[in-house]
Amino acid sequence: MAKKVLKFGGTSVGTIERIQHVANIIRQEKDKGHQIIAIVSAMAGKTNELINLSKKLSEDFNKRELDVLLSSGEQITCALLAGALLKLNIKAKSWLNWQIPILTEGEHANARIINIHVNKIDEFLKYGVAIIPGFQGVSKNGDITTIGRGGSDATAVAFAKLFNADSCEIFTDVDGVYSSDPNNIPVAKKIEKISYEEMLELSSLGAKVMQSSAVQTAMMYDIPLEVRSTFTNRKGTRIFNRQNIDYSKSVTGVAYSKDDAKITLIGVEDKPGVAANIFEPLNKAQINVDMVIQNISSDEKLTDVTFTIKREDLPKTKDILEGNKDVNYKKITHNEKVSKVSIVGAGMVSTPGITYKMFRGLADSKINILAISTSEIKLSVIIKEEDTLKAVKKMHSIFDLD
Amino acid sequence: MAKKVLKFGGTSVGTIERIQHVANIIRQEKDKGHQIIAIVSAMAGKTNELINLSKKLSEDFNKRELDVLLSSGEQITCALLAGALLKLNIKAKSWLNWQIPILTEGEHANARIINIHVNKIDEFLKYGVAIIPGFQGVSKNGDITTIGRGGSDATAVAFAKLFNADSCEIFTDVDGVYSSDPNNIPVAKKIEKISYEEMLELSSLGAKVMQSSAVQTAMMYDIPLEVRSTFTNRKGTRIFNRQNIDYSKSVTGVAYSKDDAKITLIGVEDKPGVAANIFEPLNKAQINVDMVIQNISSDEKLTDVTFTIKREDLPKTKDILEGNKDVNYKKITHNEKVSKVSIVGAGMVSTPGITYKMFRGLADSKINILAISTSEIKLSVIIKEEDTLKAVKKMHSIFDLD
Repeated sequence: MAKKVLKFGGTSVGTIERIQHVANIIRQEKDKGHQIIAIVSAMAGKTNELINLSKKLSEDFNKRELDVLLSSGEQITCALLAGALLKLNIKAKSWLNWQIPILTEGEHANARIINIHVNKIDEFLKYGVAIIPGFQGVSKNGDITTIGRGGSDATAVAFAKLFNADSCEIFTDVDGVYSSDPNNIPVAKKIEKISYEEMLELSSLGAKVMQSSAVQTAMMYDIPLEVRSTFTNRKGTRIFNRQNIDYSKSVTGVAYSKDDAKITLIGVEDKPGVAANIFEPLNKAQINVDMVIQNISSDEKLTDVTFTIKREDLPKTKDILEGNKDVNYKKITHNEKVSKVSIVGAGMVSTPGITYKMFRGLADSKINILAISTSEIKLSVIIKEEDTLKAVKKMHSIFDLD
Repeated sequence: MAKKVLKFGGTSVGTIERIQHVANIIRQEKDKGHQIIAIVSAMAGKTNELINLSKKLSEDFNKRELDVLLSSGEQITCALLAGALLKLNIKAKSWLNWQIPILTEGEHANARIINIHVNKIDEFLKYGVAIIPGFQGVSKNGDITTIGRGGSDATAVAFAKLFNADSCEIFTDVDGVYSSDPNNIPVAKKIEKISYEEMLELSSLGAKVMQSSAVQTAMMYDIPLEVRSTFTNRKGTRIFNRQNIDYSKSVTGVAYSKDDAKITLIGVEDKPGVAANIFEPLNKAQINVDMVIQNISSDEKLTDVTFTIKREDLPKTKDILEGNKDVNYKKITHNEKVSKVSIVGAGMVSTPGITYKMFRGLADSKINILAISTSEIKLSVIIKEEDTLKAVKKMHSIFDLD
């Protein structure tokens, strides 16, 4: 007998038929004698429908009330799933955020779970399935709070941690994490095991299988995860500690992001605080800066700073830079249509020649590298956007991922 | 400055535009310096939509979970209305059933409000508008409960009572209570003032302007009500204590119910307990018996019992009567298509000749009376269904209601 946290995303509970299907998955686990905590998202489309209602009233809808509004989505799924299980003669009960309670702190729409009262539910788990709304909690003041889009993953990991669960399974509409985006790279393969760090690097680059902050929490408390499909019986991808993975391959996956733009400040005065002076105003304007590379310039007292941003932020970013009196530089250049291609693998650090192999592969495909950035388990290059898929396929093939 | 409870029904908050309109009504009241508690229903259609979802899972959906499901409807309206008011720069806050709390007892789907904690909201009312979900509360065990269809009226009356409100205004899609159904009787007139008792008699007969049990509670605690339209500025109907009404007319309104059937048991043995023996099995089968009339039969030891039921219940009712071994009678007769026409008026009791005038009017219209029943403020006759509108119009005219 194990204690399991099972999380079902919005598409997994998107229709009544799917909720019945989820009830059957839970029944199978219950029949094996497991104790089950089910975390559910709002039915697919529901959260957007509610947000659209609020936007018709105000583009800047009050955040406290938005949390009251949005939390109703998961509440509905909870009641429906509990009803579906009871119909199958399985004891089940919905537990709303304030009934548990799931305590949060931090601002509305972006709160963090800080505690969950376990006693009542732990007692109930001996008899029945506890159905919990993801994505929400209640603040010290007794206000409903939500914990950000995709927050149901974070709820699942928090429950797995505080209930000391034996496993935390994330049921979704894909059957695992792939070596690259299977929609564009048909040879992409499902990864059987992956470390938290690799998962984070891959998911930050478009492989939106799981919410990153939930993976981080799981990493922090060493909670093994499994991402799997609600709609097939196939095994999913297991995500756990790097030490427990035997790496046969140095590279686990290839990720890419599109719609990026690159900006270079040429000849920046090289003195302490200059990077802060560049990026602080961008941060204030909520411009998300991704890769940052700083090189020595031809002039020894100067430096070149390159960074990437979302393409849509390019005009605003240039305006801010040009109006920034705290930074002296010679020139701004930019490249509007670039993408980032990254190879990710916890085995990279112990395998010599990976860097060379990547650059050689790109050269063979006649792809020009505009910038390079490396970390312990990731190697990213900025290239022209039109070369993206060619580069990803090449990487996939030279690192034996096909 | 007054303390007002304003209740907005489902059609009044059925769209975003209507919620904005309700926010404007509240703003006008707030501008006059009043303290406002707004009770809201689920957006029109929402409750049925949720019930239909539950029915797809089970015709006998678990009642606890159904209450969790349905209560989300009013929660959504609360958040949207609070957001709409804040957008107008009016301080407002949604208070969910458990945040107040609104305490209930009794079974799920049919609970009763037994207490409401007033302190926090009373403090808040000094600054802003409190938005409250109707139709729901929380039980001693901390479960969400609902208080039956139309329960938002009961919530409004309970708030008016416990907050000692100066008025309780029921905003709806009609602009008041009419002397008869204005859809079928074009000459029907809006009633300016009506007593609780008359309102109850009228509304039990199809004038579904307000939930009857809410009117009963208002009567018990002498809370003046006003029913008015959300969509016009016209005055509504004020409902209050009979003593405070000056009756210029003996009859206030004419009500009718259709789709009735009449059953007569002829020659029933006249002894104590026989009525109980007849009606107990019908009650168990959830057959709603309306009018009951008992006459002495031609044989002195026997009696005739007549009663009306909904037409759809006729076959079931006959089966039960014929299988009932505890009741001896000579014969069952029935009349499948009858209707009940009632004249209602608190002034009737002090006006002689009303009964005669009604019967004379029906006779003049060549309408045959099948049964008669009277109470202090109501006089009902059972007639053939085809004569219904003719009878109602005649009553309307002879009692000067046109």
